[in-house]
Amino acid sequence: MPMKATASTSHLVPELHLRSVPAAMIEALKTRFAENCSAALVVREQHGRDESSFEAPPPAAVVFAESTQDVADAVKLASQYNVPVIPFGVGTSLEGHLLAVQGGISIDLGRMNQVLDINAEDLTVTVQPGVTRKQLNEAVKGTGLFFPIDPGADATLGGMSATRASGTNAVRYGTMRENVLALEVVTASGEIIRTGTRAKKSAAGYDLTRLLVGSEGTLGVITEVTVKLYPLPEAVMAATCSFGSLADAVNTTIQIIQLGVPIARCELLDANTIRMVNQHSHLSLREGALLLMEFHGSPASVKEQVASVQAIANDFGGQTFEWACTPEERTRLWSARHNAYFAGIQSRPGCRAITTDTCVPISHLADALLDSVTEAEASGLSYFLVGHVGDGNFHMAYLIDPDKPEERATAEQLNQQLVHRALKLDGTCTGEHGIGLHKMDFLVTETGTGAVAMMRSIKRALDPKNIMNPGKIFLL
Amino acid sequence: MPMKATASTSHLVPELHLRSVPAAMIEALKTRFAENCSAALVVREQHGRDESSFEAPPPAAVVFAESTQDVADAVKLASQYNVPVIPFGVGTSLEGHLLAVQGGISIDLGRMNQVLDINAEDLTVTVQPGVTRKQLNEAVKGTGLFFPIDPGADATLGGMSATRASGTNAVRYGTMRENVLALEVVTASGEIIRTGTRAKKSAAGYDLTRLLVGSEGTLGVITEVTVKLYPLPEAVMAATCSFGSLADAVNTTIQIIQLGVPIARCELLDANTIRMVNQHSHLSLREGALLLMEFHGSPASVKEQVASVQAIANDFGGQTFEWACTPEERTRLWSARHNAYFAGIQSRPGCRAITTDTCVPISHLADALLDSVTEAEASGLSYFLVGHVGDGNFHMAYLIDPDKPEERATAEQLNQQLVHRALKLDGTCTGEHGIGLHKMDFLVTETGTGAVAMMRSIKRALDPKNIMNPGKIFLL
Repeated sequence: MPMKATASTSHLVPELHLRSVPAAMIEALKTRFAENCSAALVVREQHGRDESSFEAPPPAAVVFAESTQDVADAVKLASQYNVPVIPFGVGTSLEGHLLAVQGGISIDLGRMNQVLDINAEDLTVTVQPGVTRKQLNEAVKGTGLFFPIDPGADATLGGMSATRASGTNAVRYGTMRENVLALEVVTASGEIIRTGTRAKKSAAGYDLTRLLVGSEGTLGVITEVTVKLYPLPEAVMAATCSFGSLADAVNTTIQIIQLGVPIARCELLDANTIRMVNQHSHLSLREGALLLMEFHGSPASVKEQVASVQAIANDFGGQTFEWACTPEERTRLWSARHNAYFAGIQSRPGCRAITTDTCVPISHLADALLDSVTEAEASGLSYFLVGHVGDGNFHMAYLIDPDKPEERATAEQLNQQLVHRALKLDGTCTGEHGIGLHKMDFLVTETGTGAVAMMRSIKRALDPKNIMNPGKIFLL
Repeated sequence: MPMKATASTSHLVPELHLRSVPAAMIEALKTRFAENCSAALVVREQHGRDESSFEAPPPAAVVFAESTQDVADAVKLASQYNVPVIPFGVGTSLEGHLLAVQGGISIDLGRMNQVLDINAEDLTVTVQPGVTRKQLNEAVKGTGLFFPIDPGADATLGGMSATRASGTNAVRYGTMRENVLALEVVTASGEIIRTGTRAKKSAAGYDLTRLLVGSEGTLGVITEVTVKLYPLPEAVMAATCSFGSLADAVNTTIQIIQLGVPIARCELLDANTIRMVNQHSHLSLREGALLLMEFHGSPASVKEQVASVQAIANDFGGQTFEWACTPEERTRLWSARHNAYFAGIQSRPGCRAITTDTCVPISHLADALLDSVTEAEASGLSYFLVGHVGDGNFHMAYLIDPDKPEERATAEQLNQQLVHRALKLDGTCTGEHGIGLHKMDFLVTETGTGAVAMMRSIKRALDPKNIMNPGKIFLL
């Protein structure tokens, strides 16, 4: 029977329903996996946290899987002993996905990091789940192709699939939803299934691929991922443009999207972020609202895009574009953008970040974003803002002292207001980070009890023992 | 209890498990819907067939729904009486989706044909399920936007969502999978749920939208659809190019896609199709393998695309491009393409078409297509071939005399060979028409028993009485 307890260490994991992991289960794991199973505290603790601000007791053991069969065998044992299973990539979740809030074991997929099959002629690649996005791009470098999805962290393809991740290129190339063609998955009973083929489109039965993409480990463990690749653009230009106000930067973005400019990246950084990024990455970007943009295409097409965007930016008082012309300059700029989260965290030593992730229809972006900034300013909390604004998606990060409950309460209150505003504007509480532990109530407000009931029915049908990352997305 | 029977009229619906529709249910429908419920034979027969070559007894009654509440009430009655429900749009399914193979009632959604909400500034539109693709494009005409998904028939958005339809523009704009943002759905218990927002991306829980897109009416009745719109391209050019052989046309296509040319439409028509289309649409296209292409973009980008494609076509002996310069010429050409299926059917009076729908990774397109043509030629059957070849998707249509079982057997044998070839080439048995009645065995071969078992579990969980279009995709 599940043991109900409240852990004094937890933040916002109000009730832990810790299920026991029988000693016989640990024995069985050790027999099967030998040194690839660890119950050492340091290893368990590494696998019992992520980038969220939550805490929970660590998992009872960690299995380092080296093959799909390893995963299947571990899940079969977990099913036999009725023990939760939490898949682990590199631990960069922002929403508590990796926390063992109902106890159980962690399956570390980091050693399953082979690029299995590059089909350059079909613009597809199949990888093991522990391959990271940077590793993937390194592996396909010689083919003239690239994989565009780039969450801030160098996350794994398995983790990115499980959370339906996106990043800075999504405005042009879509998210994991649009870019995963097929998965291999170990189900809750330990069976290995495949969810698709390499065909570009298919009408063959239920779309299990997209049901599993974004299911946050609650329906199965992803053991193989086939994704789309794209030809490296013939021409790439990156530019920054400063604005007198956030409103001007946001309105520029709205116009770019509404006019259908096929911009590849359109990122907003507020003055706080610029200050933190300048310090962290030794840059000298002008402090203020900044759009960081990239244009992909043929030389003529890039030229056209740039001309359109410059004209729009001018209308909103944007400064002259500053160009990152060489690949090295571009890499430096985008690395700085990708490191913004870590730069922010380091700007206040010892802090934790409470991050927001709303996404709204582009016409509502100004309403959603500017009021949230006003509220954050008024709160007196440290914060910074970055946005995949071309998608209508932005993140506020409130930097709180984890030992000051009043700061956490303020941040949570700000997040509440921000999310409810976005939902009223026909948006979503999470553009790319997932629900995890933090947004369960928002999910109900957003989609309604009927839709969440449908999700629960699916979960119960596919995982009757509720062992696959339980306690995430919704409680059963 | 279900009644098991074999109908003498059925073709390839080997066993009908007809469930009884109690007289009390019909009474209850008539009480609730008055003249919007019909049990007249002619109405039932209209709703008991589609463009497939199958036959089954018609539904027991037809409800003409005028609102979501109508649908919900009809489904609640169906649930109460344990009676199957089959949603009906305009009846253009090619795979028997609309046949009452387990009895039950049809819900005609044709009167729910309002365009509810055009959000031009967000490039989205929300429609009732009975709106057809042509009607939708007519409604958004003044906005400078368009909806690209175009199955051959003027299908409804509800039906297109339910079958995960695509068409000639999918090579650039994706299929319904990529273009539906959110749905309103009446579930098997008659509850009304919403599956998403108008945000461009979301990581909020299970992707119910994409689970329902392509579920062929087996999980719920779609009562509202929100889809993406696209800015009308600044420049559009359409051209035809003839080749000395199908192989040359196919290899040209493969090169176009592999080089990443963002072609908007890339359609193959074989000599048989050209002959039928010329006759039906009073055109004088050159008989032979023909690529029918369209290019969208800025004037400069279109010019670049055309130059790239002309160079590739030249390498494979393609004739000079013939341009359709005016909108009227383009419309005439694409109407001819969209009417190819009907032109084909009319070329052999009294015939039925058995259509194929495989889709393979682009590098395997020549292997998949050319061997299938060789086999069709050797069979002596009438056939024609059209292909959304830019996606690796093509259709053979075998024209059979429904009174000659040997012709049907030959066509089915050809289809078997063609599908198994595609599956070996990592393709799918259906790119866009769906599984319906015809491809259940292929689905198992394609995805494996484990994946189909997962689909069945979902179906059982969401429709425990098995009343939502039962007997399609898989048997329970």
